[in-house]
Amino acid sequence: MMKKYLITGSGGFVAKHFLDYLESLRVPVSVLGVDIHPISYPLNYSFVFFSFQQIDLQNKELTNDILKEYRPDYLLHLASFSSVAYSWINPVAAFVNNSNIFLNLVDQVRLLKLNCRILSVGSSEEYGNISETELPVTEKCALRPSSPYAVARVSQEMLSEIYAKNYGIDIVLTRSFNHIGPGQKEVFVISSFAKKLAEIKKGLVVTDTIMTGNISVVRDFVDVRDVVKAYHVLLNKGTKGEIYNICSGKGNSLRAVLLKMMEIIDITLNISTDELLVRPDDNKIIIGSNLKIYEDTGWRPSIPLETSLKDIIDYWMDNVPSL
Amino acid sequence: MMKKYLITGSGGFVAKHFLDYLESLRVPVSVLGVDIHPISYPLNYSFVFFSFQQIDLQNKELTNDILKEYRPDYLLHLASFSSVAYSWINPVAAFVNNSNIFLNLVDQVRLLKLNCRILSVGSSEEYGNISETELPVTEKCALRPSSPYAVARVSQEMLSEIYAKNYGIDIVLTRSFNHIGPGQKEVFVISSFAKKLAEIKKGLVVTDTIMTGNISVVRDFVDVRDVVKAYHVLLNKGTKGEIYNICSGKGNSLRAVLLKMMEIIDITLNISTDELLVRPDDNKIIIGSNLKIYEDTGWRPSIPLETSLKDIIDYWMDNVPSL
Repeated sequence: MMKKYLITGSGGFVAKHFLDYLESLRVPVSVLGVDIHPISYPLNYSFVFFSFQQIDLQNKELTNDILKEYRPDYLLHLASFSSVAYSWINPVAAFVNNSNIFLNLVDQVRLLKLNCRILSVGSSEEYGNISETELPVTEKCALRPSSPYAVARVSQEMLSEIYAKNYGIDIVLTRSFNHIGPGQKEVFVISSFAKKLAEIKKGLVVTDTIMTGNISVVRDFVDVRDVVKAYHVLLNKGTKGEIYNICSGKGNSLRAVLLKMMEIIDITLNISTDELLVRPDDNKIIIGSNLKIYEDTGWRPSIPLETSLKDIIDYWMDNVPSL
Repeated sequence: MMKKYLITGSGGFVAKHFLDYLESLRVPVSVLGVDIHPISYPLNYSFVFFSFQQIDLQNKELTNDILKEYRPDYLLHLASFSSVAYSWINPVAAFVNNSNIFLNLVDQVRLLKLNCRILSVGSSEEYGNISETELPVTEKCALRPSSPYAVARVSQEMLSEIYAKNYGIDIVLTRSFNHIGPGQKEVFVISSFAKKLAEIKKGLVVTDTIMTGNISVVRDFVDVRDVVKAYHVLLNKGTKGEIYNICSGKGNSLRAVLLKMMEIIDITLNISTDELLVRPDDNKIIIGSNLKIYEDTGWRPSIPLETSLKDIIDYWMDNVPSL
């Protein structure tokens, strides 16, 4: 029997790369994707038997019906409102579309007594403002969530731990750091920089200055293609109820990344800060330790930052119009 | 102008005692109570100008309309699913009826730019399993929520901190310990013991044995009439964004309380444990420190446990039928 994956948020950037990874393994699998939006990417798979249902996971009845009928072996829950910036604008929607839709899914797995391994995807944002002495952060570090998005993720994580420990549901948890890669929406900073650079390079925009938010913040960037491998390995080898950082272990400021991208695309711009883009309470520095996932599963990131940035720029050079 | 209080969960035990306390202050105030159930207690107030609307706070439109029209000076949010036991049976409802209804209220206060002080009521359950070296727990102790109810309360608290710190909403937070007092529903353990003892005393039940859950657990019991004074003082003098334990500072096992109640009512019973009443993961010992609220506001509990227990027994002697 083929293994069955239910992937929520299957129209998204991470899901697309996860499917590509499953295909690369050349083992036939069944995947049911669900998403609130129709799927926009092409699906040319030979080993992934993919079907799709367009539903809003806030609709409990439909969600429950899908779990009951499909009875997945794996539930990869990627549906989320994953923009910190957006969560400041609409904190209620951010909470409902992170914590509540997840809770409904795991509760249905409990009520239906499904034998299903769930990946609960969390975020490095859960750590909040980390002091330098705590770097690189391990999974034992205290959580100080400092945005509505981060609170929603911590809530989801606390619920996952209760479901794993007390109800015996087979959940493995992640705290995923900033993923980047080709195909990411431009609401995320690296993708937005790359798109702007591509537009300038192609002459669609004429300027000698790029406007940014606070680019002194340091983040741990990990390529989405490494992230999806980590998700796959955790679904297979992760320990139930345990939380794993998924990160590169290296920190780079947004400024450094932007300068590297200018070098790759070979243009030089002035950098100017737009106060409107500065977030209310941004964490200064986040770098993670990936020792735990390495020790438990052997996973480590394989794609250097330079390669990720080059692929992201290539993606946008292909996807912004030409003059 | 009279001060205006919006009290959610106004049909409940705590709200009733809060209204009694407001009345005792002999200062005219306006109170709008809302509750999903009709109010069952008599309202004979001279200083409290009370009106009531029966609504489900999950109905966002109605909730928003009430805030918009009434424009309260104080929002005392008592509506909750406050039973830990129930939260194990229906974790989704516990989460929605704690975290989500609160989030909707504070977000409307934000969107309407109301000048309103909010009391966010949390619970000692947020601490989870406390090690003996951490007793009595102060507000700085790490939270390890170990029930769906506790997770919902921690989520509410994290949201409150974001709203206070980043959106500037005037919220004061509590972690309220086990409150007891006359009128409490029998789903709570002390009230259920008292009712059983009253039934036996009055000859409605003939038995020489009382069945209990795990009565070795130690809790910090605080009289509801002290709790509502704390809520009032925090609405007036609490510091925005700060969290306050509301507790007696003393620990008693359920066994000790049960024995004291038998002594008060003057009957002797065997005690037997019903495994069905033992919760999946109960915290062994919770005792709080009330130093912070004392230092900031002068509040301290005034009603001895003995008096609380006597009043609870009197309540049930008046409220169970006679043969």
